[in-house]
Amino acid sequence: MQTVVKKLIVFGVGLIGGSCALALKARGAVGEVVGIGRTRANLDDALRGGVVDRAYTLDEDWTHELRDADVVLLATPVAQIEGLLKRLLPVAAKNAVITDAGSTKQDVVAAARSAYSTCPSAVFARFVPAHPIAGTEHSGAAAAFATLYENKHVIVAPLKETDADAAQKIVAMWQTCGARTLTMLPEQHDRIFAAVSHLPHLLAFALVAELAGRPEAETFFLHAGSGFRDFTRIAGSSPEMWRDIALANREALLNELDRYQAQLNAMRAELERSDGAALEERMKRASNARRKWEKGRAG
Amino acid sequence: MQTVVKKLIVFGVGLIGGSCALALKARGAVGEVVGIGRTRANLDDALRGGVVDRAYTLDEDWTHELRDADVVLLATPVAQIEGLLKRLLPVAAKNAVITDAGSTKQDVVAAARSAYSTCPSAVFARFVPAHPIAGTEHSGAAAAFATLYENKHVIVAPLKETDADAAQKIVAMWQTCGARTLTMLPEQHDRIFAAVSHLPHLLAFALVAELAGRPEAETFFLHAGSGFRDFTRIAGSSPEMWRDIALANREALLNELDRYQAQLNAMRAELERSDGAALEERMKRASNARRKWEKGRAG
Repeated sequence: MQTVVKKLIVFGVGLIGGSCALALKARGAVGEVVGIGRTRANLDDALRGGVVDRAYTLDEDWTHELRDADVVLLATPVAQIEGLLKRLLPVAAKNAVITDAGSTKQDVVAAARSAYSTCPSAVFARFVPAHPIAGTEHSGAAAAFATLYENKHVIVAPLKETDADAAQKIVAMWQTCGARTLTMLPEQHDRIFAAVSHLPHLLAFALVAELAGRPEAETFFLHAGSGFRDFTRIAGSSPEMWRDIALANREALLNELDRYQAQLNAMRAELERSDGAALEERMKRASNARRKWEKGRAG
Repeated sequence: MQTVVKKLIVFGVGLIGGSCALALKARGAVGEVVGIGRTRANLDDALRGGVVDRAYTLDEDWTHELRDADVVLLATPVAQIEGLLKRLLPVAAKNAVITDAGSTKQDVVAAARSAYSTCPSAVFARFVPAHPIAGTEHSGAAAAFATLYENKHVIVAPLKETDADAAQKIVAMWQTCGARTLTMLPEQHDRIFAAVSHLPHLLAFALVAELAGRPEAETFFLHAGSGFRDFTRIAGSSPEMWRDIALANREALLNELDRYQAQLNAMRAELERSDGAALEERMKRASNARRKWEKGRAG
């Protein structure tokens, strides 16, 4: 296959960044990969696994590697992006395309606007926000694998200032990894994932937190069955990660929460007045939509 | 094995009642089984599958079969129980133990109190409310199988008026089917299942109903992933059945809904004021409890 990226720099060589590097390498679509991260142990895993060709901790001098890199992938926790950009922008090639892999997009764009504030607009035009919708319950370079992105979605969220060819380069990179790319605005991204991912997490956390806080919690948990198991699976997720996502996407999530609470209040009122027909109608709308969705995924 | 039930009458020979009959037969613990149901086609399935020895539709004359039955299992939808009791009580043996398999218990007890209102109290003392916590997505006599109840819970919910030996007979019957029996009061049963089963169903229905009602519903569903899939699985359940359960357990469910909404409001306030520490604390409580619960189930 043709080279899609000549030199890729990955900041944060974990499951997400590492799997992107491995996927490009497996297809012979990348010239070389340099990994930069916090701990030497993880970077050694990355070198051993052939994820990266060279590796530096953040404290080492990696600035020379940036000068001829055509793509920089920021795959660190979102909170580190602004600081990293401030360090790498002065040394990166002017034409380099810089992209990220964060679960929220408007906060990443705000961090980037701040970091790029003293750069020429032509440089900011090479920043492409993105979000690969993939993952497993494992993390670190050792967990990375070349097929993680096959048939997964990657949201590419260019701004009106973003160069079309920079966005196209990131689209080509993710498609080469086997993903299906979808383009949307950062606001649209955050609004959609607030509804289908961030809100369900919040609702599941709330249910388990409520039960766990009761004196007779043990009795309740003893009788919880398979419906409870599936409904609350996401309540076992990382509290640190979900605290950050909730705060980063606060406005969209508050809006979704308001809509949900209005729906729940309507359902509560129907139950209060024993309005079986209205309750059934609402449950039917949900049940039909859920069955149709499941069928669409399978087909 | 010793005979636990000499003659069992099953009203409603579906997955629940049929599997109980098959489990007792597989262990040689029942003398004979008579099935009574709405449709001849399902009863023929039951006869063919060896689930019952004789079968009658509700319209046929089955009264003579009741005279020497020692256990009557009402495994029909809960709404039919009162009417059935009124028909069978005048012809059943005085000593027969009558039990049910409904998902809610206080409404069944109320229906029974009404049906038994003109009977001597010694007859009502032979009524034992119960709820086997088992099922599959299939229904009907053809779906019944002998191992459905193995290692499952059956809640036996005797009243203060209930004879100890009648309750013990039902405990022995379900234990013979392979189940673990737990005794609790009907109020306690309904309170616990409102929290760990009925509320999660309502919450999942509400989420999918909210999304399905939007003009851009398709876009949202397109981006829903595995977290959404598991969280909303129970929203694909039968609207008729869950309407009935919600109405039957209305008070306990309203109480659970209030507690949940208070928890959600507290979480919303933390998000509103960007209180990351409080949000994380609440998520941590949920995440720890959920992981501990999963481990306890596996072990």
